Amino acid sequence: MLFHVAIEVSLPPEMPPEQRARLLAAELDRGVELRRGGVIRHIWRIPGAIRNVGIWDAADATELHAQISSLPLFPYARADVMALADHPVEAAAR
Amino acid sequence: MLFHVAIEVSLPPEMPPEQRARLLAAELDRGVELRRGGVIRHIWRIPGAIRNVGIWDAADATELHAQISSLPLFPYARADVMALADHPVEAAAR
Amino acid sequence: MLFHVAIEVSLPPEMPPEQRARLLAAELDRGVELRRGGVIRHIWRIPGAIRNVGIWDAADATELHAQISSLPLFPYARADVMALADHPVEAAAR
Amino acid sequence: MLFHVAIEVSLPPEMPPEQRARLLAAELDRGVELRRGGVIRHIWRIPGAIRNVGIWDAADATELHAQISSLPLFPYARADVMALADHPVEAAAR
Amino acid sequence: MLFHVAIEVSLPPEMPPEQRARLLAAELDRGVELRRGGVIRHIWRIPGAIRNVGIWDAADATELHAQISSLPLFPYARADVMALADHPVEAAAR
Amino acid sequence: MLFHVAIEVSLPPEMPPEQRARLLAAELDRGVELRRGGVIRHIWRIPGAIRNVGIWDAADATELHAQISSLPLFPYARADVMALADHPVEAAAR
Amino acid sequence: MLFHVAIEVSLPPEMPPEQRARLLAAELDRGVELRRGGVIRHIWRIPGAIRNVGIWDAADATELHAQISSLPLFPYARADVMALADHPVEAAAR
Amino acid sequence: MLFHVAIEVSLPPEMPPEQRARLLAAELDRGVELRRGGVIRHIWRIPGAIRNVGIWDAADATELHAQISSLPLFPYARADVMALADHPVEAAAR
Amino acid sequence: MLFHVAIEVSLPPEMPPEQRARLLAAELDRGVELRRGGVIRHIWRIPGAIRNVGIWDAADATELHAQISSLPLFPYARADVMALADHPVEAAAR
Amino acid sequence: MLFHVAIEVSLPPEMPPEQRARLLAAELDRGVELRRGGVIRHIWRIPGAIRNVGIWDAADATELHAQISSLPLFPYARADVMALADHPVEAAAR
Repeated sequence: MLFHVAIEVSLPPEMPPEQRARLLAAELDRGVELRRGGVIRHIWRIPGAIRNVGIWDAADATELHAQISSLPLFPYARADVMALADHPVEAAAR
Repeated sequence: MLFHVAIEVSLPPEMPPEQRARLLAAELDRGVELRRGGVIRHIWRIPGAIRNVGIWDAADATELHAQISSLPLFPYARADVMALADHPVEAAAR
Repeated sequence: MLFHVAIEVSLPPEMPPEQRARLLAAELDRGVELRRGGVIRHIWRIPGAIRNVGIWDAADATELHAQISSLPLFPYARADVMALADHPVEAAAR
Repeated sequence: MLFHVAIEVSLPPEMPPEQRARLLAAELDRGVELRRGGVIRHIWRIPGAIRNVGIWDAADATELHAQISSLPLFPYARADVMALADHPVEAAAR
Repeated sequence: MLFHVAIEVSLPPEMPPEQRARLLAAELDRGVELRRGGVIRHIWRIPGAIRNVGIWDAADATELHAQISSLPLFPYARADVMALADHPVEAAAR
Repeated sequence: MLFHVAIEVSLPPEMPPEQRARLLAAELDRGVELRRGGVIRHIWRIPGAIRNVGIWDAADATELHAQISSLPLFPYARADVMALADHPVEAAAR
Repeated sequence: MLFHVAIEVSLPPEMPPEQRARLLAAELDRGVELRRGGVIRHIWRIPGAIRNVGIWDAADATELHAQISSLPLFPYARADVMALADHPVEAAAR
Repeated sequence: MLFHVAIEVSLPPEMPPEQRARLLAAELDRGVELRRGGVIRHIWRIPGAIRNVGIWDAADATELHAQISSLPLFPYARADVMALADHPVEAAAR
Repeated sequence: MLFHVAIEVSLPPEMPPEQRARLLAAELDRGVELRRGGVIRHIWRIPGAIRNVGIWDAADATELHAQISSLPLFPYARADVMALADHPVEAAAR
Repeated sequence: MLFHVAIEVSLPPEMPPEQRARLLAAELDRGVELRRGGVIRHIWRIPGAIRNVGIWDAADATELHAQISSLPLFPYARADVMALADHPVEAAAR
């Protein structure tokens, strides 16, 4: 099932640069894993802050939460989730 | 360029059923055209009301507005638009 | 999968009483069908207006939307949906 | 009487991992007690953050507050409470 | 049990003056009944619009909803309800 | 004159327990003084967090602010104030 | 006592021009009466819509509501009221 | 002085097409006058609805309101205004 | 030109009392200067927190910002500004 | 393509004055570079806090994000972005 996941990250500005860089690199790695594994089907950055919107694929909301909370930045983030239904335009366009 | 477009439609409940059906059919037709033409890249329904979220592709915001306002339901709708940036996870995952 | 569905209904105050009564009766009938069929697992009224909160069971968000939009009051209603994940307390309590 | 209780927890990201783990374990234990004791009748996780929604059973709002504030994470949490009324669909479906 | 009930009324400005007067008179009558019967324990007007805040006493939220929806202005109103708990200051002050 | 005062308190979770206990005890003492002195006419807890709603009696908003800011928890609190008018139901019910 | 009163007016666009003109003229007349009588101490327009902010002087919130609801546009308006306290700068500056 | 003016227009969907076209043409004419006269210094459409954001130049807020309310769509519009101050980057960049 | 300025101050509760007292005294001094100099034309406290609303007089928004940011509490404050237009009631009442 | 970018900065009040001055100077320098380079086409301060609104020119949202996040204050800031479309008034006025 597909979910619309909007994530906004709040990193404390006073975080030491190395810790910040390390966290962001780990986040990228985990994101790539999820993207390659098909959990994240699409992801875009919303410009102007550390935030993104993505389309995630998971068996259900329980699995989805497990995947979102596996992100290294999860303790600094807030994700808002919407379950997505098929839109009739997609079927009709095929 | 890609845009995140969330559309919510408010049809007056007292609209005659045939007018409602005709409008929804025209909306579906136009949606299919936009989807086949590649303007709408993805579209999902947000369950519980007449609303959807889509990824639209347009040269710029001027063209995007022309496409959104070509929808038969545009006078009954409100679309909120966010410009989308590439997310580094997409490039790294390739 | 379970969904948290909050529905708020706005009936035009000037609606003729018989139409109002007929709509509310049809809504009750359809609600009972959904409740008996296990689609609505729990439903409570939120006091002070025509609104309720329920736990709905559907294969996915597409089926959920079909069920919500089968309600006779759907054209007068707005439903906000949240996908629900299992909470570890439930498993641990068993 | 039944109450709809939505709880959102904000743990400081810099909290030492052991303290975090200890708190979360204590929270789970207390949640299980409340669930087994019938105070929490249902509880679900809302995916994407440390938040949940539950149906609590208490004699009145005074007892409810005592139960909510017995949670080890109460100083880090905010609970929003709605009193629930019976919905006619439940009676009619029986 | 006590409830904090905030009611806001939206009367259509084009309502004929006699209908408006009749509705407001009926609302006052019903309010007086509820006040004398002890259902409304206190009620105050919030200045600047047709809105009030009151302390209502009801066995539970089901009875409370029945009382609120017995108001002649209910179809034009929206009531927001909060369950109230005892505050320790009240007990300590006695 | 009467005022509707809603107070929400945010205590830092990391505050040492003794300081927290001392502050809460001082708050209770001051609350009892204000209640006995007739400044606080009614006070209820809103369950789920450290928040309350009360009816305060003061000559005017200047005196009201002095009373609210005399609370030991004032530096941790935010109070929202609404001036209350008489409601015609109260006079008519007498 | 002084009150901060923000008023926003929503006139139906389809109101006949003469009725609109008549209402606005009556509103101006009543405003002038209140201003000359010292009930409205100051009033400014907030540009961009039919809205204003004023400082009103009334014995209490009951009298204030009577004055606000005496405005011909009251059925089309919504007024938000804040009780005002003396600010120490005013006393110190004298 | 410069002002940031965001305008959102709500045209009733049931407005006859000719009236709608006439109003929009008149709005365009008046907009062009204001633009040529230097009152509107810049204007952009915000895609997805009938809304725009502009930089307006007026002696003060009184003149600004007169200009905004001269728009034929003013009865259908809501304008939110922010006074703009010089930003030090502009002076330093010259 | 006149501006409506609403200021809300957030002092960290853990600020040492002397620093807090010193800051508040400096704020009062600067406020008195601005009030005597005619920059602040009126100022009132909004009861229940450290917040106020005032009518400020400045040549334009650039000067206004300079005056607001000259307040010693500026780093702890947030000011929301609205440009004020003349209201026809004021002219008509003279 | 043009973007409307509103930036609000939250500097911790306890930041040492030299660090604050250094950051603000670096921010000004970078702003001047972006302004001279044509990335920032216009920028204004919104009075009352450290916030501004600007018109930025970038090939797309990806480049825009890179430019916004090159600001030294980015870790302390939040930027809200709206894609801008051409408004017909501009073309018609030429």
